[in-house]
Amino acid sequence: MVIPRTYFFHKVLIVRQLRQVTVIGLGLLGASVALSVLRKLEGVRSVGYSHRATTRRKARQMEVAHEVMEDMGAAVAGADVVILATPIRTFREIMAAIAGSLPKGCIVTDVGSTKGLPHRWAAEVLPGHVRYVGSHPIAGSEKRGVEFARDDLLYGADCVVTRTASTNPKALTTMKRFWAALGCRVKVMSPEEHDRIYADVSHMPHIAAAALVNAANSDELRFAGRGFIDTSRIASGPANIWMDILLTNENLCDSIDRLSSELAKLRQAIADGDEQRVYELLEQARRKREALIAYKMKRKEMT
Amino acid sequence: MVIPRTYFFHKVLIVRQLRQVTVIGLGLLGASVALSVLRKLEGVRSVGYSHRATTRRKARQMEVAHEVMEDMGAAVAGADVVILATPIRTFREIMAAIAGSLPKGCIVTDVGSTKGLPHRWAAEVLPGHVRYVGSHPIAGSEKRGVEFARDDLLYGADCVVTRTASTNPKALTTMKRFWAALGCRVKVMSPEEHDRIYADVSHMPHIAAAALVNAANSDELRFAGRGFIDTSRIASGPANIWMDILLTNENLCDSIDRLSSELAKLRQAIADGDEQRVYELLEQARRKREALIAYKMKRKEMT
Repeated sequence: MVIPRTYFFHKVLIVRQLRQVTVIGLGLLGASVALSVLRKLEGVRSVGYSHRATTRRKARQMEVAHEVMEDMGAAVAGADVVILATPIRTFREIMAAIAGSLPKGCIVTDVGSTKGLPHRWAAEVLPGHVRYVGSHPIAGSEKRGVEFARDDLLYGADCVVTRTASTNPKALTTMKRFWAALGCRVKVMSPEEHDRIYADVSHMPHIAAAALVNAANSDELRFAGRGFIDTSRIASGPANIWMDILLTNENLCDSIDRLSSELAKLRQAIADGDEQRVYELLEQARRKREALIAYKMKRKEMT
Repeated sequence: MVIPRTYFFHKVLIVRQLRQVTVIGLGLLGASVALSVLRKLEGVRSVGYSHRATTRRKARQMEVAHEVMEDMGAAVAGADVVILATPIRTFREIMAAIAGSLPKGCIVTDVGSTKGLPHRWAAEVLPGHVRYVGSHPIAGSEKRGVEFARDDLLYGADCVVTRTASTNPKALTTMKRFWAALGCRVKVMSPEEHDRIYADVSHMPHIAAAALVNAANSDELRFAGRGFIDTSRIASGPANIWMDILLTNENLCDSIDRLSSELAKLRQAIADGDEQRVYELLEQARRKREALIAYKMKRKEMT
């Protein structure tokens, strides 16, 4: 795990700049962001909101934020940064609900795994005196819920920050600094670029893993070894969160079509008994993956 | 890792029964079998054969067998058990080449990952005084070659032993005992059942992993995280060995068709924005995989 050397620098600057960060939605990721602000950004007030009473109670018991509120408008009223950490498809509604309570100059962001629709909804719904920047901190765990919140979940994680031509440059800088101050390696791109890339490297693999499990006969699965278990690991992810991601990435069908086409190539080569072609397709994949692993090792993102 | 309690019992019986085991082909798996016989089955002579001079030299230096020979006929002449550990598609030719040298009552087996064609070839090519049983020890490593041979590679591994209606029952018992004596958990099935099951749990995942890597844009791969890396892990396997497996499993195209059909279902549900259907398909995969993991944990095949 490599933390940028500028980590402390960003921390010093961001605590001077922000007075309050409000997190809407206290699942694993939202609660971990609130807890990280509380523990790591000394002097910045951490406020959390959840619509569930049991979540609020747990969040208070665990002290994931300075204050856990049940009124969303009140929770965002004093915020410099508001972070949506609910399912992506709730964002539009939440943006509309908080629009009247957001203070002037406030930055709204989110932690959704797709970025096209959040940008569109922000442009449609948020008032002009508010600035929207997209965020996608790539941190998670098999665990779910506020009870698994950790103040180091974001430490060493990648975080993509998304901007369009109309994104306020100062707000962009603030959000880059915010995530960097929590230990993230920040990358900036457009929402279109983000969704295209993550369709291929994250959402398509999820589809492939789920299809693989569904295609196998249940009676046969007890013979599955490490290969099957690793290849299908991500299919154990929560169905509701993944449904939300898959239904909001407009590039995904293109990626699935490319996957189907690659499967069809392999099938054809096997059906033809075409050694040369089967070998080429397998070797192409092997080399491409070896290059990926070499890149990750070099960057110390893998050991 | 769970070793059957009967491990020592099988070992005591097998060393009384066998005088010589000959392994044809000294790659990682073949050399590990020869080394396991040498180290674990005291009193049984371990003989190895490789057509490559450099492999023979390394095998001798490492002492993976009592004797490493360059004449295949001579290597099998005194064998009670001959184990083919070369690529599957060489088996027919090797069976024909050794047919005249195999002693009466000798058992021929192999360690190939598909079993339909080896059984067919054995029936066509091996002389009547020889008994064929199929074997598939599910052991391997990312490493390749005689230099990575280990005497514990088979210890705790599953090993499928395959038989047809015409398989000699005593030869079947001997082969079950042999693998059990090396620490394998032995399962017996028909070659058809084996190939159908392993098409789904091993060969189809390999195809899925390779297709997934080939479908992703090389420039985007640097954004890949743990999900992509795990889902594609097996695509790093050696292309020549996998080509051999994929081209000899006659059930594989059926499995690929089922995978394609599951992909198409997910794609359709996403394209339709059909929440309920996307959720159902993801949840079906999640539950099926959780049941698999629970089964593996219970059997202590996973921790």
